[in-house]
Amino acid sequence: MKKIKVAILGAYGYTGLELIRILINHQFVEIVELVANSNAGQKISQIFPHLNHFNLPVLKKIEDIDFSKIDAVFGCLPHTASQATFLDLLTKENGKYSHLKIIDLSADFRLENPDDYKHWYEHDHLAISLQKTAVYGLPEINRNLIKKSSLVANPGCYPTSVLLPLIPLLRNQLITVDSIIIDSKSGTSGAGRSLKTNNLFCEVNESVKAYSVGKHRHIGEIEQELSKANGSKVLIEFTPHLLPINRGIISTIYVNFAKNYQIDDLQNCLNTFYDDEFFVTLTDSEPNIKNVASTNLCEISVKRGRKNNQAIIVSVIDNLCKGASGQAVQNFNIMFGFDENTALKFAPTFP
Amino acid sequence: MKKIKVAILGAYGYTGLELIRILINHQFVEIVELVANSNAGQKISQIFPHLNHFNLPVLKKIEDIDFSKIDAVFGCLPHTASQATFLDLLTKENGKYSHLKIIDLSADFRLENPDDYKHWYEHDHLAISLQKTAVYGLPEINRNLIKKSSLVANPGCYPTSVLLPLIPLLRNQLITVDSIIIDSKSGTSGAGRSLKTNNLFCEVNESVKAYSVGKHRHIGEIEQELSKANGSKVLIEFTPHLLPINRGIISTIYVNFAKNYQIDDLQNCLNTFYDDEFFVTLTDSEPNIKNVASTNLCEISVKRGRKNNQAIIVSVIDNLCKGASGQAVQNFNIMFGFDENTALKFAPTFP
Amino acid sequence: MKKIKVAILGAYGYTGLELIRILINHQFVEIVELVANSNAGQKISQIFPHLNHFNLPVLKKIEDIDFSKIDAVFGCLPHTASQATFLDLLTKENGKYSHLKIIDLSADFRLENPDDYKHWYEHDHLAISLQKTAVYGLPEINRNLIKKSSLVANPGCYPTSVLLPLIPLLRNQLITVDSIIIDSKSGTSGAGRSLKTNNLFCEVNESVKAYSVGKHRHIGEIEQELSKANGSKVLIEFTPHLLPINRGIISTIYVNFAKNYQIDDLQNCLNTFYDDEFFVTLTDSEPNIKNVASTNLCEISVKRGRKNNQAIIVSVIDNLCKGASGQAVQNFNIMFGFDENTALKFAPTFP
Amino acid sequence: MKKIKVAILGAYGYTGLELIRILINHQFVEIVELVANSNAGQKISQIFPHLNHFNLPVLKKIEDIDFSKIDAVFGCLPHTASQATFLDLLTKENGKYSHLKIIDLSADFRLENPDDYKHWYEHDHLAISLQKTAVYGLPEINRNLIKKSSLVANPGCYPTSVLLPLIPLLRNQLITVDSIIIDSKSGTSGAGRSLKTNNLFCEVNESVKAYSVGKHRHIGEIEQELSKANGSKVLIEFTPHLLPINRGIISTIYVNFAKNYQIDDLQNCLNTFYDDEFFVTLTDSEPNIKNVASTNLCEISVKRGRKNNQAIIVSVIDNLCKGASGQAVQNFNIMFGFDENTALKFAPTFP
Repeated sequence: MKKIKVAILGAYGYTGLELIRILINHQFVEIVELVANSNAGQKISQIFPHLNHFNLPVLKKIEDIDFSKIDAVFGCLPHTASQATFLDLLTKENGKYSHLKIIDLSADFRLENPDDYKHWYEHDHLAISLQKTAVYGLPEINRNLIKKSSLVANPGCYPTSVLLPLIPLLRNQLITVDSIIIDSKSGTSGAGRSLKTNNLFCEVNESVKAYSVGKHRHIGEIEQELSKANGSKVLIEFTPHLLPINRGIISTIYVNFAKNYQIDDLQNCLNTFYDDEFFVTLTDSEPNIKNVASTNLCEISVKRGRKNNQAIIVSVIDNLCKGASGQAVQNFNIMFGFDENTALKFAPTFP
Repeated sequence: MKKIKVAILGAYGYTGLELIRILINHQFVEIVELVANSNAGQKISQIFPHLNHFNLPVLKKIEDIDFSKIDAVFGCLPHTASQATFLDLLTKENGKYSHLKIIDLSADFRLENPDDYKHWYEHDHLAISLQKTAVYGLPEINRNLIKKSSLVANPGCYPTSVLLPLIPLLRNQLITVDSIIIDSKSGTSGAGRSLKTNNLFCEVNESVKAYSVGKHRHIGEIEQELSKANGSKVLIEFTPHLLPINRGIISTIYVNFAKNYQIDDLQNCLNTFYDDEFFVTLTDSEPNIKNVASTNLCEISVKRGRKNNQAIIVSVIDNLCKGASGQAVQNFNIMFGFDENTALKFAPTFP
Repeated sequence: MKKIKVAILGAYGYTGLELIRILINHQFVEIVELVANSNAGQKISQIFPHLNHFNLPVLKKIEDIDFSKIDAVFGCLPHTASQATFLDLLTKENGKYSHLKIIDLSADFRLENPDDYKHWYEHDHLAISLQKTAVYGLPEINRNLIKKSSLVANPGCYPTSVLLPLIPLLRNQLITVDSIIIDSKSGTSGAGRSLKTNNLFCEVNESVKAYSVGKHRHIGEIEQELSKANGSKVLIEFTPHLLPINRGIISTIYVNFAKNYQIDDLQNCLNTFYDDEFFVTLTDSEPNIKNVASTNLCEISVKRGRKNNQAIIVSVIDNLCKGASGQAVQNFNIMFGFDENTALKFAPTFP
Repeated sequence: MKKIKVAILGAYGYTGLELIRILINHQFVEIVELVANSNAGQKISQIFPHLNHFNLPVLKKIEDIDFSKIDAVFGCLPHTASQATFLDLLTKENGKYSHLKIIDLSADFRLENPDDYKHWYEHDHLAISLQKTAVYGLPEINRNLIKKSSLVANPGCYPTSVLLPLIPLLRNQLITVDSIIIDSKSGTSGAGRSLKTNNLFCEVNESVKAYSVGKHRHIGEIEQELSKANGSKVLIEFTPHLLPINRGIISTIYVNFAKNYQIDDLQNCLNTFYDDEFFVTLTDSEPNIKNVASTNLCEISVKRGRKNNQAIIVSVIDNLCKGASGQAVQNFNIMFGFDENTALKFAPTFP
């Protein structure tokens, strides 16, 4: 079988590295280009010696890539850079590279409404025409759209952990729309490799803090998808926290049952919805980041709260894998017709 | 000045060790007895070599202590054991040792209503008469009662982090009673030194989980004190999480404003309430466990949520210090008329 | 192609779990039996919910296994138990199960000389006849012997990190025999899942200590293999340390050059020796546990010391993978004629 | 009693913060100036909110300080900057500020020989005249010199952990001079707060690496002091490692006994030497970073190695406290005639 020729833009960051980790073992993929403008000319193993042992292409500038020889592109560029780059690639020169299938891991194509984009990212979107063609790449929810799409907006890490449990519940009107409170905690790799004092080992280690209280950008994305599931506008409360671990997100979600429903109804709904899914599981025990770290899995529990009408939903994922690069490969598999879990069937490293 | 002669019961555990750390530098205290039945006869530095450098009494069995020579007792026994022990000490033999001032760090004397105790701890209370005389030892709230008390029930760690911000708000009716959702995260020392697979390094490290969802025992204690502040029964939602750090609690609390109030009203209320307090501070920045680790401090922020009527309160303490032994010494200082921050004025070790 | 039917004895511990993680993706393996006497009857996912997502056999007692239907056995039993078990399996009932190929991860078959075994493990070996047939399973050194063996003694974790760099140097007489000093540091998973206060999160976290100074059992194994490489008895100095990380070993080794040799000679020797090896690499940069964590890789650097005739060798592996279960699968692959890196070609999870 | 007026230059870094933590509780000290050029005008609690609770002077530029009102200066400036600054202060304007007592925590005044300085720091020393007057501030070794000094060069962190055990042994000729191999491991706070990718949480966490193999700058300092103790030039082997913990150094030191000596002789030598010292203790158990973290203590063990004539010495300190700011306060106490452990009698926070 002919392998799909893949380019990774922004191979330098944690999501790029996670893509490389996964795709190295994808039997139908050949990584033919790695783009990292600031380190062009270097071998990636000069920067990341742990890749010594694998044959990988030399890092290049984007202008030195011949995209006519590429089948699929994973975008790991910062937001804004991503929309400019793909606009160029797909629409300039009479759509010269319109054959490309793109999975974009940035936030650039996730928000359907340009006003929403402007509200959360504080500038005008540069590629509104493209944005219209993008599909929100949550495979368990949008599989059929993804299959036919050429531009998949890979969901954010927090949203993935929140939407997987909430969308089926809202679609089935099992919970009240105005009651949703989401308390999320993420490992530090979610902050990327950027040089900030806040991300230094000694500042993060042995500590936890809340940040962006009431105004984190992922709120826009979560509310958009929940509103679609609900059929009308949903507002949420969302607080992210920084954890002293490398990988993993745990989201604790408080919801009220809709009238006449019980905890069993919520559990049954999710059990049914995810029954055939490889990557999502309902559990009676306590979801634990360790259970999913370094995998594309999502574990969810639904328990009765202290109050009669309240449920507490806990969901765990690996922010770099199911929350980013693993889900991107899952989308890739769907787009190219491979088994959805190709190259993604790994068990967590435990401990 | 004559020093207060102090005994610590249960010197073996983390709260006992934290008491020793603090009291070693208390100018008005002499640690005269350390009780640890299972290691009686040993020097504590044989078990905890880090105490090599300090002169401390040999560990003894409780029956070998002459309590007539003791002024104050810190109880660090497991619950149930604590109520039995103090019943013996204070009421047997015609109240022979009724001169003792006791600060009990167990849960045994915190719940005023024996039915509540039975509900949460699943057996009858053995010392109901004593329990009636106990004062809930949250100094910023109950200072005057503590001053006159001989038996102080030192609050739990989670409750301390929750009650400090919520009691003033409820007393002033600034928040709605039925809206309180508390998402707490604690360092692993909160689980003590007991040998459980769940507490092994490799199981805790690089992971986070929720536990006792909807039914943690501290709910009883929190609801009791909030109900008193409110004047009628308060029900809460409370989810504790286990963090891969040694010390520290961060509680993220979601509340709705009562009608006609704004975020400023909540902030002003707490600012005013804690203006003269050494250990509690309102902050505009993000409370961070690192800011209070190894101290008796509590930092609180109050921020607007995403929704119009919602506030997100974040509070951080050190679970072993302000959440246990530091607060116990604060109570001791009040009971004996010392400056409340004697031996407690340390800045956090940063980083 | 017919799959090899595999049983894992002692599936309950960290090395058993790591075997499961690897073998799940081994295209030529079917895990047909998991043995864990104390949890027989349970599904392994009841104990390790992270294995929820994979189809695995129910845990059984060893007496309930029909070994005539098994091709290969991985032994993850404690030492002593291992020798008794395999003696039974292989020699009782007229060698009924002598068709089995065994990879034993315990220390039981590593020491060739029964006196050495008795010295380090403080009791007589129970299966001296078997021990004689065992091959020390360090694939890069003993590949040809392993190929023909039915009983492979999988090396210890510390020894693997030490022997890979030192054996080629000693064989080529590039270093002086009496100068070897080994300072090793290991992640806490090396201590297994046993319930000891020393292994509790709060005791290990934010600390490092040396242990078994001058007398760790792995000394016997290291000296045996170095002596064989050298042609005469080698004595070493070896100090293990406990690190607050889950996985990984870093060994820093101090050696003197033999006369007339330089640092380049040592580097060239190892470069040549490992040139064709997939799992072992010489590097000019600083070997870092992160570079090899969760993989079967070993990274080695050789640098000039401060003194003229001294080299400092640094070697890193993952103690559970190349130091245990990964190497066991590598041995399995050799024994059954598969590509040596089958199911072992994963890149490290970074970060 | 009149308090000593203290200025801290470079209050912004970890050693400056640790000085503040300690001096806040020094009954004979008033912190009157905090110098941090780049943040002049701010309150330090704006940068470090954990200092909210303490009254501290506003940050200033050094040119805005009136040093005539200062008694003692703690220098926490980077090397090179330190020598220039103190040259200015002490020698310009007819020695206007020659009344100052200075404890310099940089490396600038530690190396007595300007050639050594140039060799290790790769530029000419700018204040050779001052350097001649500096005393190497290891109190247990140089107490009498420190007492009379106005310029104390506070030792490096690694050197402190190494010199305390080795100087008495060398002075008494109990070990062979050419056998010393030092394998040290340090917490990440030793790298300071500088923004380097290598110091990011995700890069340090769950990893350990060796660095500056064979050429770390502290070699110069260690060899200088060991040579003085020995009476002739000592060369050492020294390898530092980076640990994923905030604080602490563990140095494992390999030495050969001099002829006719035994392990007991080494133990007795150190026991005698440190018998009256508050901060240094010999132990039979395993020194553990946790035993000394956040304190000014040093714990040392001396054990027999595997080889007949070899001893393995393990020493632990807190790199920021006994390895920097705690030792600086100890020096300050000596210089001003206070009890040496004033403000330094704290037990470690355990766990």
